[in-house]
Amino acid sequence: MPFELDLDMPRELAPIAWLIGRWEGAGVVGYPTIESANFGQEIECFHDGRPFLEWHSRSWLLDAEGNKVRPLATELGFWRPLPDNEVEFLLTHPTGIVEMYYGRTSPAKIELRTDGVIRSPQAKDYAAGARMYGYVNSNLMWAMDMAAMGEPLQSHVSAELKKVGPPTITP
Amino acid sequence: MPFELDLDMPRELAPIAWLIGRWEGAGVVGYPTIESANFGQEIECFHDGRPFLEWHSRSWLLDAEGNKVRPLATELGFWRPLPDNEVEFLLTHPTGIVEMYYGRTSPAKIELRTDGVIRSPQAKDYAAGARMYGYVNSNLMWAMDMAAMGEPLQSHVSAELKKVGPPTITP
Repeated sequence: MPFELDLDMPRELAPIAWLIGRWEGAGVVGYPTIESANFGQEIECFHDGRPFLEWHSRSWLLDAEGNKVRPLATELGFWRPLPDNEVEFLLTHPTGIVEMYYGRTSPAKIELRTDGVIRSPQAKDYAAGARMYGYVNSNLMWAMDMAAMGEPLQSHVSAELKKVGPPTITP
Repeated sequence: MPFELDLDMPRELAPIAWLIGRWEGAGVVGYPTIESANFGQEIECFHDGRPFLEWHSRSWLLDAEGNKVRPLATELGFWRPLPDNEVEFLLTHPTGIVEMYYGRTSPAKIELRTDGVIRSPQAKDYAAGARMYGYVNSNLMWAMDMAAMGEPLQSHVSAELKKVGPPTITP
């Protein structure tokens, strides 16, 4: 895919600009309280000319043939680059949880940990997460450790996504 | 516009199903700390077969001729109907704020107040909000009172939007 020069991009976005695009891929989700499963994921990440990125991610349970069975996690939010390679990642989940991650960017890598969670009385127990996003061989890799359901922080999700084009959502 | 029967809609969504659609309209924003302005707003609200609604709202500053000048508020989130006509509304804002609203539905009206806010150290002061959404003459009306920048809870936003069709976003 040819490199696309984005002349409208605010310079503040440079450290996380590799997240921009439409991504599709697959991963594995597991935890002591659930059975491990393969999932498919689609992400749209884009800007509207202001110094933040909008983030839409959907995932689906996959069957053995790789067909979508039913929707799993959906998350919506924003990446906010801060001075000195710091970054915030604000997320809303339909499970009754809103949260803010805080972390640092390095070339082709972002490491984040939970900086605050609001959990509905109706939501399942969720205490904290740690996420890593990496740009590896032009793919988006990510992994999440989670502390939830009384369990300590441990491996929960990992996935690898290919860039399938520029964002389709036009703000 | 003909009534569209949505056979996939979970019955839990019935009390808030009138939010579903693609909406466009205009409103007024004001506060003691800012100059009053007219804005245009577009909302997409839809479900993916599960008992919550996804919510994407964008607004733009309008000039005197009604042309879009620059983007204003963007919010992403989810409506979660609960038993007994209670409802949660979870939102993420690119201003460094995530929040959860809690309230009640009545026929063609939803009243909400803030149930929790996480605010980045980089975000402006924001303490609480109260929102009302109403379905009036087939239009979506909404109004928000806000406590922010040291000011007590008071009128901040109101708008009226027309339904311009079914959601275009397909999860």
